Amino acid sequence: MFDSIDEHIAEHISLTDKDLEVFHSLLVPKRMRKRQYLIQEGDYVNYQYFVSKGCLRTFEVDSGGNEHTVQFAIENWWVSDFGAFFKERKARFNIDCLEHSELLGIHRDDLELLYQKIPGFERFFRIKLSGAYVALQDRILSAMEKTSTERYLDFQKRYPNIEQRVPNYLIANYLGIKPESLSRLRRKLAQS
Amino acid sequence: MFDSIDEHIAEHISLTDKDLEVFHSLLVPKRMRKRQYLIQEGDYVNYQYFVSKGCLRTFEVDSGGNEHTVQFAIENWWVSDFGAFFKERKARFNIDCLEHSELLGIHRDDLELLYQKIPGFERFFRIKLSGAYVALQDRILSAMEKTSTERYLDFQKRYPNIEQRVPNYLIANYLGIKPESLSRLRRKLAQS
Repeated sequence: MFDSIDEHIAEHISLTDKDLEVFHSLLVPKRMRKRQYLIQEGDYVNYQYFVSKGCLRTFEVDSGGNEHTVQFAIENWWVSDFGAFFKERKARFNIDCLEHSELLGIHRDDLELLYQKIPGFERFFRIKLSGAYVALQDRILSAMEKTSTERYLDFQKRYPNIEQRVPNYLIANYLGIKPESLSRLRRKLAQS
Repeated sequence: MFDSIDEHIAEHISLTDKDLEVFHSLLVPKRMRKRQYLIQEGDYVNYQYFVSKGCLRTFEVDSGGNEHTVQFAIENWWVSDFGAFFKERKARFNIDCLEHSELLGIHRDDLELLYQKIPGFERFFRIKLSGAYVALQDRILSAMEKTSTERYLDFQKRYPNIEQRVPNYLIANYLGIKPESLSRLRRKLAQS
């Protein structure tokens, strides 16, 4: 159950067997069926989750009832409404499962405990956060300035192999374009 | 010279006098005149900077030559092209000084050294990054969904007292509206 998360952590910090034991003891496994919600708008969010298996989508619903897909999460991603998790405010996002998913959650208080017991995790999450910050910034700039084709290529690069797993209308939603435009764009790229 | 940065650090971690000595020895003071550039597009970026005094602006120039103001930085903010700093790629942003500014820079290698010598800084920057991540996400959503009046109120909340220090056309640029619209919006708010 812990193989993929242990490998993921080992990319940035080294842990002893005892550290791993402490770490594992704080993780809460969670299995979700396709279409279930991990987080709904208005929820209090006490957990962040590592995706061991599956595919989830973070989206917001605007006042007109339109969904805006903010992010996908697949294996080895961390997922939560981080605004709600870090700031202890209510969730503005919804996160649902596009596939049957297996997650490992850690409670905010246990994360704090983890930092105290194994300070290496401060480093680990600092590194993850710096990557997340830059990726988010790139995504904003990409939305502001790039053509839909360039945004699509960015999406492919950011989420390799996800294209077969996510319905086209959601990829289009993530890119901020109509499904027809996505099909057209793909045909054009295939021909070039 | 170090009073404001020491207070800023002390908000999240406790340091001994010896720690502070090590920390200070790694900081490089930098004075900039109004209109000077701290970073220009295409630069390699080896430093992140703490603003002891002054006001800076991060902006991007699109292919049509139009400036997009991404962020302001005033006292107690950290500033850099973080994509370039973290990922060791060329800067896509420009950062110029809107006022005479006093900065304390830390080189990427010295930051790594600091983490090794004083692991508390891992925690400090993890906390700062989680705040920056959430603020950035809020800004995107605000740009997508909110009215210009709501975005203006967010700006005031995020940068208290900056309004008198920054020219109106740059505030308008940050909000993605015309200077005339900003004046209209202010009049409307003053009357309400």
